[in-house]
Amino acid sequence: MASTAGKTITCKAAIAWEAGKELSYEDVEVAPPKAHEVRIQIAFTGVCHTDAYTLSGKDPEGAFPIILGHEGAGIVESVGEGVTNVKPGDHVVALYTPECKECKFCKSGKTNLCGKIRATQGKGLMPDGTTRFRARGQDILHFMGTSTFSQYTVVADISVVAVQPDAPMDRTCLLGCGITTGYGAARITANCEQGSNVAIFGAGCVGLSVVQGAVTQGAGKIIVVDVNPSKEEWAKKFGATDFVNPTKLPEGQTVVDKLIEMTDGGCDYTFDCTGNVGVMRAALEACHKGWGQSIVIGVAAAGQEISTRPFQLVTGRVWKGCAFGGVKGRSQLPGLVQDYLDGKLKVDEFITHRKTLAEINSAFDVMKQGDCIRAVVTMTD
Amino acid sequence: MASTAGKTITCKAAIAWEAGKELSYEDVEVAPPKAHEVRIQIAFTGVCHTDAYTLSGKDPEGAFPIILGHEGAGIVESVGEGVTNVKPGDHVVALYTPECKECKFCKSGKTNLCGKIRATQGKGLMPDGTTRFRARGQDILHFMGTSTFSQYTVVADISVVAVQPDAPMDRTCLLGCGITTGYGAARITANCEQGSNVAIFGAGCVGLSVVQGAVTQGAGKIIVVDVNPSKEEWAKKFGATDFVNPTKLPEGQTVVDKLIEMTDGGCDYTFDCTGNVGVMRAALEACHKGWGQSIVIGVAAAGQEISTRPFQLVTGRVWKGCAFGGVKGRSQLPGLVQDYLDGKLKVDEFITHRKTLAEINSAFDVMKQGDCIRAVVTMTD
Repeated sequence: MASTAGKTITCKAAIAWEAGKELSYEDVEVAPPKAHEVRIQIAFTGVCHTDAYTLSGKDPEGAFPIILGHEGAGIVESVGEGVTNVKPGDHVVALYTPECKECKFCKSGKTNLCGKIRATQGKGLMPDGTTRFRARGQDILHFMGTSTFSQYTVVADISVVAVQPDAPMDRTCLLGCGITTGYGAARITANCEQGSNVAIFGAGCVGLSVVQGAVTQGAGKIIVVDVNPSKEEWAKKFGATDFVNPTKLPEGQTVVDKLIEMTDGGCDYTFDCTGNVGVMRAALEACHKGWGQSIVIGVAAAGQEISTRPFQLVTGRVWKGCAFGGVKGRSQLPGLVQDYLDGKLKVDEFITHRKTLAEINSAFDVMKQGDCIRAVVTMTD
Repeated sequence: MASTAGKTITCKAAIAWEAGKELSYEDVEVAPPKAHEVRIQIAFTGVCHTDAYTLSGKDPEGAFPIILGHEGAGIVESVGEGVTNVKPGDHVVALYTPECKECKFCKSGKTNLCGKIRATQGKGLMPDGTTRFRARGQDILHFMGTSTFSQYTVVADISVVAVQPDAPMDRTCLLGCGITTGYGAARITANCEQGSNVAIFGAGCVGLSVVQGAVTQGAGKIIVVDVNPSKEEWAKKFGATDFVNPTKLPEGQTVVDKLIEMTDGGCDYTFDCTGNVGVMRAALEACHKGWGQSIVIGVAAAGQEISTRPFQLVTGRVWKGCAFGGVKGRSQLPGLVQDYLDGKLKVDEFITHRKTLAEINSAFDVMKQGDCIRAVVTMTD
């Protein structure tokens, strides 16, 4: 055990004190882990649109003050009573989608969603209903069960997985969300067959990872759709066979028409990686009659709804979705790390920007630019 | 070959001369079948809401004059050149969902929708672009490739299947649409597992046949939802374990709340057999998080759309649909007839009313009453 075990640690964190304001880089007190909890020294964290969405105040369930961040990798500092799946010194990735292996969901064999700590995680609390963070004399909420924008964080033991120590943590942190979400959506949720035609709407980290998943599944046409022309080069680099810019189509041709034309009747699988409900509809309607499946990955703004004519479903299209790519974090994430180590899964290429924790607000700024795929934040001072 | 082979037959039919008017019982000339066509002496036909929908004029693709009807059983009178799958004297069921066994759809192994004659069938024409019906000196259109409201009809050879001659045709006609649609939806499209909880919205012929399919799949709770209280007895007779009347719930409880409560989190499979887009949404949202699948069977009115929050899909619910229950007519219908002959599939119980072809307008009238499940029309004078 580290000498800090059992003691409160004071370290730096980026705290979101209120919606719509910048994060504040300051001291936070991190209490020791209770039973079935793990304290992690975060080494690197990614910055994702979900963090920005909650910070904006548009998330109706967002509460403050809170420590955001959910793409984090680090080293276990200490563990609470009863923790058996990780030990101090383990290299780990934090999991916002936990895996208890014993609830109705985990045992179903049909989903990666775990129900065990859902209620408290949704409220920004640890499973016992309290928080491990304090700053300026106040309790600070947890975020998505991970709160990786702190040099130390405490998570439930079911919310963390040990991974190969030879995998660099500035890469594995990105497997905590976007890359896994896209790669898993193609390989687990869709499980695209050899030769199937696939279209991916949105060429960010998630979309480009769907491309990678489709490549490993042996898909035929892999068509990336994005309104940003600079994404064509990115798409091709990750294995896309075609690129469609919906703003550059001939007058009167929709992106749905174009995709149906390119695939002789429609795509076998389509993926929405935009969060735009209009795009989600197009993704469904670009599917092949009889069997095409559209997978919703993007998170839509509060109150937004998807719609279509039911005829689209009656004639055999399937509308589904997934969270974290359908990946069971504790069971399957080490396999993705291995794919990375074996050169089958590109991760390095996603890192377009690097920041320190003190500079984290500028990481949010660059994320809004089209040339940023992922900004990785180094946690050390 | 019958003595009528190769000759035009004059017989009685119920012709829809224009939208919104009653059918006219009168003489029609039925030309002999061309190559790959089959002329059937229809013995019995069911009357279905789809016939009424097209007759009403609300179907934007409905054209007139036309001979409606798509739930028909009869005997092959003669066949055109090149027909090998049926011969004169065969007892057959007409198939509005054909099966050519050679198009992209038929070969996919993923759908029962056949693409071979879709374009002409949709226009009310035989595959060569002409019609076999004439009355009052005018060409009369075909309907759904079947037109069973005529004592003789001509269909493509891929739109007909020979069935067991010991199965009474006043029963097998109903396997041409509603019963097969519901039974297939539970057994083929959903393929519900043993013990799964199922909810069926709408207890007409289709919904009650979903119940039967769920029973044979060994489903656990089989919950029928209908606003008509008289349907509770029907539902139980066909094997439902529970009945929910949405109009009788406590103040503030929705049918979605009720079903989630009854099934500890939501249904594994739900089926919309109403065609009401609001019900389709409730059916999806009553599904269990993580894996629940909702199957749209009902046909919505033109222009109507379904909608939901995409979160419903991201958290693992699946929205799909089927036509003709996912059943491949030529390959699989004789199996359903056998289930009927073996006592596994109830058909007799659906027949609440009987009419002659001359009385067919009153069959449309009784269909609008709650106590009618199916009216069977006898074609002989």
